[in-house]
Amino acid sequence: MSRKHVIAVGQLGPIMLAESKAEAVDRMIAMLREAHAQGAVWIVFPELALTTFFPRYIYETPEEYDRFFEEGLPSPAMRPLFAEAARLGVGFYLGYAEKVAEGGRMRRFNTSILVDRDGTVAGKYRKVHLPGTSEPVLKADFEHLEKRYFEVGDLGFNTFDTSIGRIGMCICNDRRWPETFRVMALQGAEMFMLGYNTPTRNIHHPEPAHLREFHHRLSIEAAAYQNGAWVFASAKCGAEDGFAMIGGSAIVAPTGESVARTAGEADEVICHNCDLGLGDYIRRTVFDFGRHRRIEHYGLITATTGVIEREAAK
Amino acid sequence: MSRKHVIAVGQLGPIMLAESKAEAVDRMIAMLREAHAQGAVWIVFPELALTTFFPRYIYETPEEYDRFFEEGLPSPAMRPLFAEAARLGVGFYLGYAEKVAEGGRMRRFNTSILVDRDGTVAGKYRKVHLPGTSEPVLKADFEHLEKRYFEVGDLGFNTFDTSIGRIGMCICNDRRWPETFRVMALQGAEMFMLGYNTPTRNIHHPEPAHLREFHHRLSIEAAAYQNGAWVFASAKCGAEDGFAMIGGSAIVAPTGESVARTAGEADEVICHNCDLGLGDYIRRTVFDFGRHRRIEHYGLITATTGVIEREAAK
Repeated sequence: MSRKHVIAVGQLGPIMLAESKAEAVDRMIAMLREAHAQGAVWIVFPELALTTFFPRYIYETPEEYDRFFEEGLPSPAMRPLFAEAARLGVGFYLGYAEKVAEGGRMRRFNTSILVDRDGTVAGKYRKVHLPGTSEPVLKADFEHLEKRYFEVGDLGFNTFDTSIGRIGMCICNDRRWPETFRVMALQGAEMFMLGYNTPTRNIHHPEPAHLREFHHRLSIEAAAYQNGAWVFASAKCGAEDGFAMIGGSAIVAPTGESVARTAGEADEVICHNCDLGLGDYIRRTVFDFGRHRRIEHYGLITATTGVIEREAAK
Repeated sequence: MSRKHVIAVGQLGPIMLAESKAEAVDRMIAMLREAHAQGAVWIVFPELALTTFFPRYIYETPEEYDRFFEEGLPSPAMRPLFAEAARLGVGFYLGYAEKVAEGGRMRRFNTSILVDRDGTVAGKYRKVHLPGTSEPVLKADFEHLEKRYFEVGDLGFNTFDTSIGRIGMCICNDRRWPETFRVMALQGAEMFMLGYNTPTRNIHHPEPAHLREFHHRLSIEAAAYQNGAWVFASAKCGAEDGFAMIGGSAIVAPTGESVARTAGEADEVICHNCDLGLGDYIRRTVFDFGRHRRIEHYGLITATTGVIEREAAK
């Protein structure tokens, strides 16, 4: 079996608050077809790809924000995308707001799925590292209220065997945490797929705007190299009703090199013919985990959440 | 107390096999004085800074390789460096090959120390992530036999309180592993100091030479950003008896930006007036560990050394 596949990232430009899910899905179907025409067998769409990035707004009750959520898989809004992808034989990663009755109550997660080339759902992930706050900070003209609208993901970081290889998933802020990728690499991930919505402005502290894209790139390139795996990162970007988000969607080789990048902040497809064997030498040499990792010295990573309070060693 | 200090990196050009430790120490003393003249209160020297990078050679018995090792602290060879540093009031990080009688046997480690501005030893670290092999691979005209000459470090990753702040130490290959820095950041490290000897050629797999410096830079920039701490990385570089090593010594701010870099592959001092408070906002917001880390999902990091053998999740 060939280990080379053309894989695409389908970056979305802004989705306005007034825009319908059907319009967003139409735009994704257009990118799906463009990717297919370039030979792609898989396409990665952004986080919360069906609507505007609604956690920037303050809502009080589910009645106000439930319209951003999806129920069922595929949800009614997703159906045309599922159908066209299966018809073309293109798999995809999709981020969406998930609403589900579990354990006798209604739960909400920031979720992503992998849909294989035959249209079957190959995996689901619920975002673990929710950024921002649950209460408004009122420091800017927008908020980052993911902790208000979503529960912390309860499925952990898994890998999923698909027709193109073993894929690990994460979402947005997860990519800043090396733990995210290491847990999936320890399960043999060959590819990491992720979507994101990253404001160009840090509302928690003033910092140069260029750092926002730099930190994104630094994190995904380090994740690729330090785990010898491909990274596919898809932004929703541009200004949604005046609120700007970074682009910089990218395909990163297991060497840590970005081999394809979007050029703008609108809908844009990038593709690369990815040799999934490229990371083998990295995982066999410098990052041969079994030979080189020293877990006896890593204990604090899982033993403590925050910085421990004690005198430094002498 | 001011949180701003001028801190230096003292990169060493090649040390030939025939060069004496006294010559190497003289070169470091010259850089120490240069750093002091620029206002530096601390200087970071490379890994195994007193001799050539001897693990590239094949030796059979301790009689052949013991001349590269130091006994006692300061060892006789180090004494002039300790004396001049204390006289000038400049602290330093120094890497060396340590030979020590412990537990009734002779042990050897790839070690680094922190010596505070008053000349007292503030901390010791023994390299955990030893790269390379214990037996020659014979694929090139040089070897990488750290596993032959050194035991795996037994002190773990600690932080040390010094007159300039809380410092974490590591050595060379440790910097490629995000676990290294996370364990120290969880102990409140504000600065990471490290030395390295990195061949420009990967003898385990052919890869483009430029990747060697890129991977170095990527790893230290990611470590700085993802832990909101300064990184001081000091190379021994240039061609030692024909065996070339990368330079690229750098000072990296907690934003992940390299704020000072060496330009060549010879002895070279770089300084930066470092605001140790710069990382505070990062550790208070995006990387507020206590608020955002999810250790319940990190279990594999400390539970398994190598990739687990199992079916991927469905």
